[in-house]
Amino acid sequence: MKVLKSQKEFEIRFSEVDSMGIVWHGSYSLYFEDAREQFGKEYNLGYLYIFEQGFYAPLVELHLEYKKPLKYKDKARIEIAYRHTDAAKLIFDYKIYSLPDNNIVATGYSIQVFLDKSFNLMWDLPPFIKEWRDTYLRDK
Amino acid sequence: MKVLKSQKEFEIRFSEVDSMGIVWHGSYSLYFEDAREQFGKEYNLGYLYIFEQGFYAPLVELHLEYKKPLKYKDKARIEIAYRHTDAAKLIFDYKIYSLPDNNIVATGYSIQVFLDKSFNLMWDLPPFIKEWRDTYLRDK
Amino acid sequence: MKVLKSQKEFEIRFSEVDSMGIVWHGSYSLYFEDAREQFGKEYNLGYLYIFEQGFYAPLVELHLEYKKPLKYKDKARIEIAYRHTDAAKLIFDYKIYSLPDNNIVATGYSIQVFLDKSFNLMWDLPPFIKEWRDTYLRDK
Amino acid sequence: MKVLKSQKEFEIRFSEVDSMGIVWHGSYSLYFEDAREQFGKEYNLGYLYIFEQGFYAPLVELHLEYKKPLKYKDKARIEIAYRHTDAAKLIFDYKIYSLPDNNIVATGYSIQVFLDKSFNLMWDLPPFIKEWRDTYLRDK
Repeated sequence: MKVLKSQKEFEIRFSEVDSMGIVWHGSYSLYFEDAREQFGKEYNLGYLYIFEQGFYAPLVELHLEYKKPLKYKDKARIEIAYRHTDAAKLIFDYKIYSLPDNNIVATGYSIQVFLDKSFNLMWDLPPFIKEWRDTYLRDK
Repeated sequence: MKVLKSQKEFEIRFSEVDSMGIVWHGSYSLYFEDAREQFGKEYNLGYLYIFEQGFYAPLVELHLEYKKPLKYKDKARIEIAYRHTDAAKLIFDYKIYSLPDNNIVATGYSIQVFLDKSFNLMWDLPPFIKEWRDTYLRDK
Repeated sequence: MKVLKSQKEFEIRFSEVDSMGIVWHGSYSLYFEDAREQFGKEYNLGYLYIFEQGFYAPLVELHLEYKKPLKYKDKARIEIAYRHTDAAKLIFDYKIYSLPDNNIVATGYSIQVFLDKSFNLMWDLPPFIKEWRDTYLRDK
Repeated sequence: MKVLKSQKEFEIRFSEVDSMGIVWHGSYSLYFEDAREQFGKEYNLGYLYIFEQGFYAPLVELHLEYKKPLKYKDKARIEIAYRHTDAAKLIFDYKIYSLPDNNIVATGYSIQVFLDKSFNLMWDLPPFIKEWRDTYLRDK
């Protein structure tokens, strides 16, 4: 099975920093979301696409580990990797590196499920995700 | 015409403070929104009520003046006052005071218009707002 | 050993809700922080107090599980419980309930470490925390 | 006198959109801040540079006008222009355009003053700003 990964570089904004002068821990959930966006763009699995297929994909679990602080104006890179599961879920792993030294700053993962537009949980994989997996995960 | 006012006390949260140790200027738009909520609750003009009448009331103008900084854990009070206009608009004036000294910390105003659910601008006052004004503004 | 718990009721703000009409997952890290504030207030362990003792207590781990969505204007209650550890860490467990039905909406935990003002990690428990534990955790 | 302008393109993030499906009005103060960053980078007047000269430059006034809504995934461009004043202030004007149609979405301005590290207001222009004006505003 192929490994699907995206990455994105970003710079710490003034509004993301707290009174200790480091990035507020809550800002990392935003970086993770930006990474999912980036992944969705590259692999055709954005929120809008999922929505157009008739589904929501809300988070049911989010885990973050903070290794080193980031400061205002620091440059960083976030890597997102698709973690395969047979369940009707989307799991992503994240790593944030400071730049240019490439030290690990934070790691984490997120788990999403699928709801239909009436907010019913999908126990079975929505067909469009089956197709997506066939397209993107199969070794050719 | 009666003067309609609400007020609310609040405490500065850690996440609202920037690396200078004072409340980030962008947080004040949140305090203003909280004040509109409070007003909506007291005078039956909340977002949900407006929505149930078939309308949105988005901001078209927001003005903020910052007089003194607020710090983490400071206590403050926000006052919101309805400013009458004959136009199909909602205008509110805001004053934020530090506590317990009651010094003015910030002032501002906001202007909202009415859109129907198809996002068309209402040039005439929606009937439910006419009724609202009759109920709340008329001196008895 | 005593069980230390705090709780706080809150109402969902307009700005915390996303385009699905439910609370954006990132907003929960703010609710957790509010709960830590509440705990700090009741048990004399607020950020400012920790800071005055010469330390920071940044998060090194944050875990969130989302069970049910919260919507704009929903009322909720967050419970925070101190989880004892012998390590030089602060661990808290969180439960968010919707009101008035008291259904579990989200759970999670956070882990904090202690840094001195030069951002050095404290491997041993800072003395003021030892005293705090003696004061608050000891059965009398 | 020369006209100093910067601009930046950006895409609307999921977290910036409210339950009406449009960008929450409070998010615009973040776009303005991003534009100031961009300006600071191009014209050597970033927050960190100001800080290193011994000053803060907090906002004392912020004005926003919302002309058209932006939606999730919309692309936009923000333009920031330095507005000259003889006073010890920094004034910027902002215009946000939707892309690719280049319609005006929002406008506004911000006013900043200078404080020294003890939070005293500078009535006279700090020397480093005098030099900056000489360097960047003078027609050669």
